[in-house]
Amino acid sequence: MKIPVGVLGATGMVGQHFVRFLQNHPRFELTWVGASDRSAGKKYRDATSWRLDGTMPAGTADLTVEECKPGNAPKLVFSATDASVATEIEQAFAGAGHLVVSNSKNHRMDDDVPLLVPEVNPDHLAVAAMQKAARGWDGLIITNPNCSTIVLTMALGPLVPFGIQRVVVTTLQAISGAGYPGVPSMDITANVVPYIGGEEEKLEIETQKILGSVVGGKIVPLAAKVSAHCNRVPVVDGHLVTVSVEFASKPSLADVRNAFDTFRGKPQLLNLPSAPAVPVIYMEQADRPQPRRDVERERGMAVFVGRLRECPVFDYKFIALGHNTVRGAAGAAVLNAELMHAEGLL
Amino acid sequence: MKIPVGVLGATGMVGQHFVRFLQNHPRFELTWVGASDRSAGKKYRDATSWRLDGTMPAGTADLTVEECKPGNAPKLVFSATDASVATEIEQAFAGAGHLVVSNSKNHRMDDDVPLLVPEVNPDHLAVAAMQKAARGWDGLIITNPNCSTIVLTMALGPLVPFGIQRVVVTTLQAISGAGYPGVPSMDITANVVPYIGGEEEKLEIETQKILGSVVGGKIVPLAAKVSAHCNRVPVVDGHLVTVSVEFASKPSLADVRNAFDTFRGKPQLLNLPSAPAVPVIYMEQADRPQPRRDVERERGMAVFVGRLRECPVFDYKFIALGHNTVRGAAGAAVLNAELMHAEGLL
Amino acid sequence: MKIPVGVLGATGMVGQHFVRFLQNHPRFELTWVGASDRSAGKKYRDATSWRLDGTMPAGTADLTVEECKPGNAPKLVFSATDASVATEIEQAFAGAGHLVVSNSKNHRMDDDVPLLVPEVNPDHLAVAAMQKAARGWDGLIITNPNCSTIVLTMALGPLVPFGIQRVVVTTLQAISGAGYPGVPSMDITANVVPYIGGEEEKLEIETQKILGSVVGGKIVPLAAKVSAHCNRVPVVDGHLVTVSVEFASKPSLADVRNAFDTFRGKPQLLNLPSAPAVPVIYMEQADRPQPRRDVERERGMAVFVGRLRECPVFDYKFIALGHNTVRGAAGAAVLNAELMHAEGLL
Amino acid sequence: MKIPVGVLGATGMVGQHFVRFLQNHPRFELTWVGASDRSAGKKYRDATSWRLDGTMPAGTADLTVEECKPGNAPKLVFSATDASVATEIEQAFAGAGHLVVSNSKNHRMDDDVPLLVPEVNPDHLAVAAMQKAARGWDGLIITNPNCSTIVLTMALGPLVPFGIQRVVVTTLQAISGAGYPGVPSMDITANVVPYIGGEEEKLEIETQKILGSVVGGKIVPLAAKVSAHCNRVPVVDGHLVTVSVEFASKPSLADVRNAFDTFRGKPQLLNLPSAPAVPVIYMEQADRPQPRRDVERERGMAVFVGRLRECPVFDYKFIALGHNTVRGAAGAAVLNAELMHAEGLL
Repeated sequence: MKIPVGVLGATGMVGQHFVRFLQNHPRFELTWVGASDRSAGKKYRDATSWRLDGTMPAGTADLTVEECKPGNAPKLVFSATDASVATEIEQAFAGAGHLVVSNSKNHRMDDDVPLLVPEVNPDHLAVAAMQKAARGWDGLIITNPNCSTIVLTMALGPLVPFGIQRVVVTTLQAISGAGYPGVPSMDITANVVPYIGGEEEKLEIETQKILGSVVGGKIVPLAAKVSAHCNRVPVVDGHLVTVSVEFASKPSLADVRNAFDTFRGKPQLLNLPSAPAVPVIYMEQADRPQPRRDVERERGMAVFVGRLRECPVFDYKFIALGHNTVRGAAGAAVLNAELMHAEGLL
Repeated sequence: MKIPVGVLGATGMVGQHFVRFLQNHPRFELTWVGASDRSAGKKYRDATSWRLDGTMPAGTADLTVEECKPGNAPKLVFSATDASVATEIEQAFAGAGHLVVSNSKNHRMDDDVPLLVPEVNPDHLAVAAMQKAARGWDGLIITNPNCSTIVLTMALGPLVPFGIQRVVVTTLQAISGAGYPGVPSMDITANVVPYIGGEEEKLEIETQKILGSVVGGKIVPLAAKVSAHCNRVPVVDGHLVTVSVEFASKPSLADVRNAFDTFRGKPQLLNLPSAPAVPVIYMEQADRPQPRRDVERERGMAVFVGRLRECPVFDYKFIALGHNTVRGAAGAAVLNAELMHAEGLL
Repeated sequence: MKIPVGVLGATGMVGQHFVRFLQNHPRFELTWVGASDRSAGKKYRDATSWRLDGTMPAGTADLTVEECKPGNAPKLVFSATDASVATEIEQAFAGAGHLVVSNSKNHRMDDDVPLLVPEVNPDHLAVAAMQKAARGWDGLIITNPNCSTIVLTMALGPLVPFGIQRVVVTTLQAISGAGYPGVPSMDITANVVPYIGGEEEKLEIETQKILGSVVGGKIVPLAAKVSAHCNRVPVVDGHLVTVSVEFASKPSLADVRNAFDTFRGKPQLLNLPSAPAVPVIYMEQADRPQPRRDVERERGMAVFVGRLRECPVFDYKFIALGHNTVRGAAGAAVLNAELMHAEGLL
Repeated sequence: MKIPVGVLGATGMVGQHFVRFLQNHPRFELTWVGASDRSAGKKYRDATSWRLDGTMPAGTADLTVEECKPGNAPKLVFSATDASVATEIEQAFAGAGHLVVSNSKNHRMDDDVPLLVPEVNPDHLAVAAMQKAARGWDGLIITNPNCSTIVLTMALGPLVPFGIQRVVVTTLQAISGAGYPGVPSMDITANVVPYIGGEEEKLEIETQKILGSVVGGKIVPLAAKVSAHCNRVPVVDGHLVTVSVEFASKPSLADVRNAFDTFRGKPQLLNLPSAPAVPVIYMEQADRPQPRRDVERERGMAVFVGRLRECPVFDYKFIALGHNTVRGAAGAAVLNAELMHAEGLL
């Protein structure tokens, strides 16, 4: 018996990624799709301009789109709603007793809402109790970070024990991160756009929160300083980041490398269905990872790290790559739900 | 009466950039082209697979290619020779009394060879006297930096008075920087290659030398720490860099901005033919400069800076863009020669 | 004394191309810009998101945008209006005595409206008399073809004397042809979109009209059959076409080549300011013309032809390239106006 | 018990495609890899710069590379040898009793060598008897066509019954078709290269041979006229072709569509392991198939057709897409071998 799940904002680009990612899921079955009034009442196939490679999953195509209102939706819903409406919709569902596992940014920085990367901060789920108490909800809102934040925090996760003090990160982000129609081709063909609105702030503060601790039932961000430079590059899928990092005391290069290689988190221990066997994969080749060549490995759920070397300014520098629409969005939320299911929180 | 000049390695890709850049030059006239034995004796048009946009300059096409040996070459020669032969050829010419203005990397880091960015360190020409003395040459070798270094040092030049302490820089470099055939399209189409052999080291140490001082007739590098992350992106022309910088004491943002806006160097004071009127142009738009849209402005000789803002880790961060094959190569060398001519060093 | 001109729809993408192309024009001076109600009353600099490379022409930036209504507009207006409003606006201006030189598609196929390519069918201006008579206008509407049609008809123009019977053409069209935001980068990055709505029909019927004759004061299309396959490719500027053509009787290859080489039209004879010295430039290299390398030559106003060879199915095949936003749009319209001015039709 | 197979030229780009395609094959097991003297004696992992996405198959990595000489090679060998050596090597293997299933061009046009597309001309295997007789070989050489030819002939295969008379085809070919390093990025970034050496001739004459008949033990090419325009576009994988076709008598559009939809060949009847269930898949959407979005479907072994419509010059026009390195190379050869195995010809 699979657990029925729904997707809020299912006809949009992020919603489509959820629909595709949930196809053939061993524990969850997508039985309910919600979208705007305009789409409600139509078959999903008719309400949706399918933008992803391949064809629309047949089972979902025949579902009738519902309005984004609690009622007959399953208890577990993934939120792919637009930021302009996410606050209201997600709170309505949480208030009505639903577990809302959200990819939207609206509640990410609330200090009683977990901003979850299951390999890195599964203990942050502990603030859920405070959320329910403070807000008087039967339900709950859980969020995953921005797509570039996930890549950075997955790569920094193994290094937390060394005492992260300062991080300078530059991103080279794929066009799929901007949705559809997203980035005009006139802007990005044979070009770089050295600005993504709001991205640097998100990358800086979300990283601090994720790497932070639960103190007194609340999340206290890590005191590390993080500075981000965000760029859009003409790559289809995969965010690449260059990272310089300073630690409380400098470990050996072998220690850092070993931390990457041996890093395993709860998803691996619990053998969650969407968890990559090895969450951080170090590549030896001098010029890897590369977005087009590596992003689809491990079904897009691992983060690839390479080029670990001494940094003349801080302690070490390296690069990391992750799949922005899989590990950085739909896959992240589904893994969050799998963790909660395994922990008995559904 | 124009000054006759020659180009060593004139049939290669960098040589072609020199040929194009020298076309219609108001003070220099390209009268002599040197290349390998294989090409010597042929017309330039027959010895050269012209790879640049547009057509080969007619005047040069009819020149007969000579071997790269001193003799009947003009006193002033630009060197676009390959690193594998540059040391021998350039020393032979300097020994025979030629002024060798080189784009090759071989002598860049010699402490008696100026690594010149005319707006930034024209005083480094003073070590020429020591070079002649130490090497017993009538001639002289002058070099320009690596293409990415020029972009960074032109942008840092105005900030030297604030006391540069630490710099973390990530580059997004154009494919033209790798020459022809250069980067295979299978490597870079819709992809990023996060490694360029030797580039990070060059960017780090050349920057320190350029921003250094002449002490006792020798160049003493700046003690600032520089850490570089170099990447190839699918852009035709134009290297973009993201920069985080720490100063001895933090100036105001307005002071930094003013430093960019008011920066002028000797090329501007002397009104050199290839000098941009404003060497560092600050762009106000949130998403500029961009390589494809801005790189051809000012005939490729200015550096464009944008996105100046507070850095949570250091003092400030910003981006800079320059034309790698113009300001970063042929144009740089020609501007070096123009400066030496204006200073009476020819 | 320059002739004052206006641009209808000046704030849009096509309008911006007109603004840029008219900058420093020796005979026309842009003194009036019209746009939608929403923009009217603002300075052009404030009403316009400038999308073209380089910066907005200073003289135009300070103009106040007017509504697209006749009144104080100059007699000569270029129309860059959107198809949804072009019929009404252009007829209003023509009715009020203006000469409307339009890039819009709305009136192109009217049999009393010249669809003008000045090198190819300047005699079609003769139908202007009938247009005025039939419509009771003091003014006049003149159109230029679709961007891909111009490339094809410029290349076929020299071959008309051989009796064109059948043409099969495949286009590889640049993204700039779709305006801004135009083609989403998710659609075209490392991809081909083998469909452009309405483009094949335009290319087929406009070609027949342009190559047709004026009979009894009306334009009679050429009876040749034309079949078009239109594709969007990830190129910034420049439409490339492959052409197979059958003639009434097969000329020699040398005759065809000679026809390309010696082709000159009225713009060349009259030495019009925007006319390329040689309208059709044949390139000898096996792999040229190429969009990125050749499109900017001759200020984008010539068409480049290459690869002329026997066709196993028809008589000959070849390729042609033209700049879609210059020769294929703004430059085409301006050249049309220059011709009319030279012919005393202003 | 799987059948052991070898790959000639296994370390090159085409050879790597064979190695990857044969991984986990249900009937064939790659046990032998041959390459040049320079590689012989090394482990495959050490002799090969792996250029494909993902990692080198572990089983092959440990094989020792042999010289390309018959002896201990398996009876069935796939040839990925370079054209410069393919004639000698393939004949040596065929002479020594091997079945050489070749992707090289050298023997494709010999009239006693099948140029096989299993869905289209499986009857051409009948000339094998003559080949053995005429050449005095125990072995045999079988070839598959050029990558663009396969896409065209798979799409024309269903239409053969209508009597194909004339075909005009324009290709938009992926960069992977040129191998590695292949097309320089400076040539193809944001550009089209309208020439591929030898490609048009191959596409024209190979198509005629494949669609031809076996008469008197020899292959007689189809008398249809074929004219090809070949272009390289910045796409990673997937050749797209536009096709205009004339038939002996014009069928209805429904008949043509039905021919595509119902087409099945011997690989489908025999349920060969690498055969796509439906070899020609018609896509209804106006703008499909597209290379990046569709090329990986059906493991790259189907050909996708779309945009079937009336042609003003001939009878009908349409587009087709196929995976050039899978269906157009390694997958084609393996399917050829599967057919021969199923027919008892091994």
